[in-house]
Amino acid sequence: MTEKIVIALDVMSGEQGPSACLDGANISLGRNSNLFFHLYGDQQIIADCLKQFPNLAAQSETHHTDFVVPMDMKPRQALRQGRKVSSMWQAINSVHENVSGGAVSAGNTGALMAMATFCLRTLRRIDRTAIAAIWPTIDGETIVLDMGANLHVSSQNLVDFGFMGAAMARVVFNIKRPRVGILNIGEEEIKGNEDLKTAAAILRESDMPLEYVGFVEGDGISKGHADVVVTEGFAGNIALKTAEGTARQVVTLLRDAFNSSWRAKLGYLLLAPALKPFRKKMDPNNSNGGVFLGLRGIVVKCHGSSDNHGYAHAIDLTAAMIKNNLVNEIRKDLDVFYKDQDEDLLAKPEIKQDKTESKDKS
Amino acid sequence: MTEKIVIALDVMSGEQGPSACLDGANISLGRNSNLFFHLYGDQQIIADCLKQFPNLAAQSETHHTDFVVPMDMKPRQALRQGRKVSSMWQAINSVHENVSGGAVSAGNTGALMAMATFCLRTLRRIDRTAIAAIWPTIDGETIVLDMGANLHVSSQNLVDFGFMGAAMARVVFNIKRPRVGILNIGEEEIKGNEDLKTAAAILRESDMPLEYVGFVEGDGISKGHADVVVTEGFAGNIALKTAEGTARQVVTLLRDAFNSSWRAKLGYLLLAPALKPFRKKMDPNNSNGGVFLGLRGIVVKCHGSSDNHGYAHAIDLTAAMIKNNLVNEIRKDLDVFYKDQDEDLLAKPEIKQDKTESKDKS
Repeated sequence: MTEKIVIALDVMSGEQGPSACLDGANISLGRNSNLFFHLYGDQQIIADCLKQFPNLAAQSETHHTDFVVPMDMKPRQALRQGRKVSSMWQAINSVHENVSGGAVSAGNTGALMAMATFCLRTLRRIDRTAIAAIWPTIDGETIVLDMGANLHVSSQNLVDFGFMGAAMARVVFNIKRPRVGILNIGEEEIKGNEDLKTAAAILRESDMPLEYVGFVEGDGISKGHADVVVTEGFAGNIALKTAEGTARQVVTLLRDAFNSSWRAKLGYLLLAPALKPFRKKMDPNNSNGGVFLGLRGIVVKCHGSSDNHGYAHAIDLTAAMIKNNLVNEIRKDLDVFYKDQDEDLLAKPEIKQDKTESKDKS
Repeated sequence: MTEKIVIALDVMSGEQGPSACLDGANISLGRNSNLFFHLYGDQQIIADCLKQFPNLAAQSETHHTDFVVPMDMKPRQALRQGRKVSSMWQAINSVHENVSGGAVSAGNTGALMAMATFCLRTLRRIDRTAIAAIWPTIDGETIVLDMGANLHVSSQNLVDFGFMGAAMARVVFNIKRPRVGILNIGEEEIKGNEDLKTAAAILRESDMPLEYVGFVEGDGISKGHADVVVTEGFAGNIALKTAEGTARQVVTLLRDAFNSSWRAKLGYLLLAPALKPFRKKMDPNNSNGGVFLGLRGIVVKCHGSSDNHGYAHAIDLTAAMIKNNLVNEIRKDLDVFYKDQDEDLLAKPEIKQDKTESKDKS
């Protein structure tokens, strides 16, 4: 018997309500029968909903919670009012207590990050978490991080993001040595600020399981210039939202064109089957799921407006990361890298001591 | 007789060569007979090219230059080797000497900015220039600045960008009180770093001819949430390139769909006329032209790969800014704003004096 993959669901937090979440879990269960869910939320609502999904009812356990973290609540307030009692906290805590392998929520991002960090804590050596998004490219997908967990970060944080993103790419894309790049305003080595240049130098010289491919420009993301693109949260968030806005603008313009005349409508009818892959690529649900990296557990944030397919995609992604033990992969990489660094540091005092000795002699 | 609008063209620097530049100038002249051009470049090449454009030949004067600034030359080296002798420098210098009202070049951006700053100098009170781009939105256009002239800037620089962008919007879009926003990772006032919050407070309280609309997210640009969106050059450049990349990706996916079967091809044929406005909106030539703001003269950078229509668009834009005296508009606004500030500062010592007096008494 294959081992169960256990996922905690914050059933209550999404804008589309519990049914979208449970429908999504049911879709995911149809694709992967090894899943088992812990459902956190209003017991009555969940029970009513589960009547539609007998398979899911059989592969899940409901845990009643009273409090739902509102979408506009400040993280600190959410921690104060929602700790222990909210569906969000309970889902995360179930990861902390090893009841579940990972948690999924479509709730308030700031509150989710605050609770996840408070409850699960960051991995040793990590002082900045990151939100990683999977970005559709012209011929595949790219992981971009950070999407806004931390506005401005150090060169070492960027390096850590590179390692964490590469581990995620190994697990999710099944690539042995993912190509890692740093987002910048030009590809030349002289571009950007000192933090970017320092991070680039460290990634280039590291012996970690990744291939550093240099700086990547904004348009290099969708061209697929790297499997992992690293950036600080401000630019990352701006880039993601701008790309979403542009895509939405293009789709609106197209829709207007398709509806502009009878001739155009007929043309669209003929084209419709050929547009299927296009529509799939442009569907934000198919790249749904911001993955929180740097924590001692897996937490995935769905878009607030996720529908059932959006949830299903995020749950599939969570299952893949649990199955391949992403957190352990990251932990191993950090241990290897920082052990080498520690040894370098340990090597230095000897030189200092020599100097002291020669001083004593003089 | 209407006054001539005189534009200096760096004919040699674009990737598509002098003919694209001169063809573009000719198109622009066809739309606006008041234009007159100073052409800087190889006299022989220009003379050969002008045979195709007798109208342009009659409304231009050629000035021979020997040196063309290469696209990959470092700004400092370009200043050293290209000053005085290059077509780029001569075009800018013609603005400095009031021979032309503005200069247009499709050359090396860094070199162009270095030469423009060195030759024209910044306006009084301005210590950071900005590159402004006109960004197509769902129902119009938005000015976004800075696109990469300066990576990181102060809150005061952001405020200056707001004033300069608003002046440009008044001139180019003919809006009396342009809506100005600041690019940020959320619309709430608590989002972003201190510089953004300080700039927001100053813009909100200023009495300048603009309407401050708050923070704008990445997707708010294409939604047209503001007429002017202000940001530091790093995020601005990333946003612009990401949007370009996304648009290009979408167009490629569409083209693949249109060519994927005979049925799709037929559908496309029927749709083609309806897609014209879409194609026009997506054509980067129709939003061509990075406007250098903060200098004592108008300099416009075309895309390096500009074709004739790209040049024509940038020349139209330059003509509009010369006609409405953009530099003077900006100068006036800065004078008003900083005069108020100076008066505030002058007012303060009196209070200090009062305190000193009371101290003396005690």
